[in-house]
Amino acid sequence: MRRPVISATPLRAYIAGVKTLVIDVGGTNIKVLATGRRVPIKIESGPDLTPRAMLRAVREATAKWTYDRVSIGAPGPVKNGRLLREPWNLGPGWVGFDFKKALGKPVRVINDAAMQALGGYNGGKMLFLGLGTGLGSTLICDGVIIPLELAHLPYRHGKTYEEYIGDAGYHRLGDGDWRRHVFTIIDLFVAALVVDYIVLGGGNARHMKRVPKYVRLGNNANAFRGGYRLWDD
Amino acid sequence: MRRPVISATPLRAYIAGVKTLVIDVGGTNIKVLATGRRVPIKIESGPDLTPRAMLRAVREATAKWTYDRVSIGAPGPVKNGRLLREPWNLGPGWVGFDFKKALGKPVRVINDAAMQALGGYNGGKMLFLGLGTGLGSTLICDGVIIPLELAHLPYRHGKTYEEYIGDAGYHRLGDGDWRRHVFTIIDLFVAALVVDYIVLGGGNARHMKRVPKYVRLGNNANAFRGGYRLWDD
Repeated sequence: MRRPVISATPLRAYIAGVKTLVIDVGGTNIKVLATGRRVPIKIESGPDLTPRAMLRAVREATAKWTYDRVSIGAPGPVKNGRLLREPWNLGPGWVGFDFKKALGKPVRVINDAAMQALGGYNGGKMLFLGLGTGLGSTLICDGVIIPLELAHLPYRHGKTYEEYIGDAGYHRLGDGDWRRHVFTIIDLFVAALVVDYIVLGGGNARHMKRVPKYVRLGNNANAFRGGYRLWDD
Repeated sequence: MRRPVISATPLRAYIAGVKTLVIDVGGTNIKVLATGRRVPIKIESGPDLTPRAMLRAVREATAKWTYDRVSIGAPGPVKNGRLLREPWNLGPGWVGFDFKKALGKPVRVINDAAMQALGGYNGGKMLFLGLGTGLGSTLICDGVIIPLELAHLPYRHGKTYEEYIGDAGYHRLGDGDWRRHVFTIIDLFVAALVVDYIVLGGGNARHMKRVPKYVRLGNNANAFRGGYRLWDD
């Protein structure tokens, strides 16, 4: 677990001229951005994607970019810079893959939801909830990133939090009821984890309209911001 | 939130000759111990106990002891060295009380369950569960102490974890059923918080007989050990 000292922007690195390439590996797209660039590049992903094919595609797309180090957000649990489990919606070969060796540069790998969480972090004790296919959860406390798996705890009628407010729940419950359950669950989690605020990310966060003031909606830039911040230590 | 670097014993302080007085404030007893002493002193507590009366009793009981600094474990949420809420089973005057000023020595105040948790911490990601009247919970991750309130989350049939495995639950369910629910809840929490191990403390932990290897039973010395460790930073 790393303890990045959180800065609002990767200003120090920028001034020092150190450039970071951030790779956000998703099931549909790989998104890349580097220090000093404004427009991320999207590369197609998919269920056959191996880590070597991913790196080849990223190298081609960013052939004219310069960078000194790489941050990778990957879908799955990460320990000591390596994935512990094959990602659900990608190809084989990810477990234990040595990104540092393959890239020949300093690399930091982190779970993709944790990278997005770090990008939305604003000090204190924060819970990030990813409202996507499933329900992601990451706690950040004084800059220490703590991956959680709250999704599968019981909520109501023998069903889990994820069964209610994951994507299947959204389609089963419909907009209004789904939102009501999101609010109820937010309040349960704020109390149980004694957090100062919650950041909502993931594709379904867009269905939330008004949110209480201790809830913030994340945005697409958070993943990149998190990738830069990984080096702020 | 403090980040003590955890050592197995308060060896460094002991060598340096710095002595810490640890005060563990409970609803029935106040327990005190200091660096280099082996036998804690118990002082009667109760629903009328004010912080001044507590300090007076401690000073009298430890009149012949020498110490340079004081750790206090207090029943309630603590922020910046002060209690945020009056303890349920003590007298008035605790909120905002300035222990440092009253004692004229360096003082660190921490929630009593968190102090016990810190004493049982052995590195990595640990969840402490206090099986007492209620259900206390504290997460420690890389030495960072994160107080939780998991007790009031829903568990089954609209009832909370605390309603099942708190003291009332113990008496309602009986020994065997209560133990089965403790195991079920331990497994839910281990998965949800992705912890390496659980330490069980609190008065009812004695009803647990065999425990799985990722569960450890705390002991009475943990509170004092936690109090010493508060200064290991």
